[in-house]
Amino acid sequence: MGWHNPGVTSDIKRPVATVSRALPPPPPPYLRGADLSREKLLQAAHELLLDNGGVEPSVSQICGRAGIQQGMVSYCFGGKAHLLATLLDRAASEVGHEMEGLQTSTLPPTEKLRRHVRAMVYNFVRFPYAQRLGEQVAANDARSQTWSERFAVPSLALYRQVVSDGIASGEFRPDIDPGLLFFSVTGMCEFLFAAKSWLNLAGESLDSELVDRFADHTVQLLFNGVNAPVSPKATKRSK
Amino acid sequence: MGWHNPGVTSDIKRPVATVSRALPPPPPPYLRGADLSREKLLQAAHELLLDNGGVEPSVSQICGRAGIQQGMVSYCFGGKAHLLATLLDRAASEVGHEMEGLQTSTLPPTEKLRRHVRAMVYNFVRFPYAQRLGEQVAANDARSQTWSERFAVPSLALYRQVVSDGIASGEFRPDIDPGLLFFSVTGMCEFLFAAKSWLNLAGESLDSELVDRFADHTVQLLFNGVNAPVSPKATKRSK
Repeated sequence: MGWHNPGVTSDIKRPVATVSRALPPPPPPYLRGADLSREKLLQAAHELLLDNGGVEPSVSQICGRAGIQQGMVSYCFGGKAHLLATLLDRAASEVGHEMEGLQTSTLPPTEKLRRHVRAMVYNFVRFPYAQRLGEQVAANDARSQTWSERFAVPSLALYRQVVSDGIASGEFRPDIDPGLLFFSVTGMCEFLFAAKSWLNLAGESLDSELVDRFADHTVQLLFNGVNAPVSPKATKRSK
Repeated sequence: MGWHNPGVTSDIKRPVATVSRALPPPPPPYLRGADLSREKLLQAAHELLLDNGGVEPSVSQICGRAGIQQGMVSYCFGGKAHLLATLLDRAASEVGHEMEGLQTSTLPPTEKLRRHVRAMVYNFVRFPYAQRLGEQVAANDARSQTWSERFAVPSLALYRQVVSDGIASGEFRPDIDPGLLFFSVTGMCEFLFAAKSWLNLAGESLDSELVDRFADHTVQLLFNGVNAPVSPKATKRSK
């Protein structure tokens, strides 16, 4: 599954040594012919999407980067749309495994949500283009619901379970809406990678230190908000 | 400034009667010739961006919608890139006024941030495409920093002021990073409009009821997080 790197995604607390680790490793040496071309095309599309801030690459850009004739896109995938859908499918597959693991685990709701949020930040390091590309693919072809179905559907199921359990256990506020929380958390995690041109303005650069700090910041904000923990004045005002 | 509707943006607590209010009103009747063409082209581009989930429209789509010859894009704007930059400039101008007003106001930090967050949700109803289009325009042309400069720079200034004041007054946690908070809040507010294809999956539709509910949800989440207010167990676990 994925880029032949099982185990990497399960260790969701790993430090990101460098953001270049977001790139999957090259195809394994035993691949030949069309299988190898297929992997090279996927890898090239992935790299172009990373380099160009998620702007959809052209067939000639993908083939130029992969060093493969343009006809192979049709031969291997039936066209660029299916190539991109396959790329999203891989991203969703890696992310989906994590979510299923969390959903079936017996961790308390707070810990499940904490792990999920950290994983989501690190997943957007690896696939910063997935959400925007998924929307674009869905807009161009109503049948291509891969990303929505494989990412959003299991995510929503996880949020419904975690929020329901967390409210029942008294850990979470009883008025949390799981669907809106899913949108909020995904938006918070993704935006750092969607607004790259603003990082300079904020005096930041996208390296592993920032990603780790952002993951901590996001977990703190999600659980505790901005309010000071002991301040009746602030609590009263924010109602 | 903007679409000749002064006053609309200042009432940031207004209910959104219908999301179609996000569309600016048509150009005023006194405009003639190139001025009128200019307004019609901007309006057409705005509508196409709203309809197509922020996908950049072609010159022929814009002109077709506006009922104007294609040559007028060059005549009025010098090209599509400048047309889109002008559209972003208008959005930034409307949003920028609000932020300056908040920054110079004497409201307490909690109330400033609360009003800003509600305003941001409603601004993304009106300009859901602004952030993505701004990134795209910046990626295609390094000189086009309009959206970044006119939106992100004043936003960052507001966040630095509000967070610094809120920490000093004891309202906010002392470890809040204003730059990262700006990314988190923008991401939370924008994502509902960036992931439109997921709304159905969550059983939602983008109407005024959802927008109002999402604004309330976002304010609550930002200030208080998901943790139940009185639950030593949850507080301990989320550390």
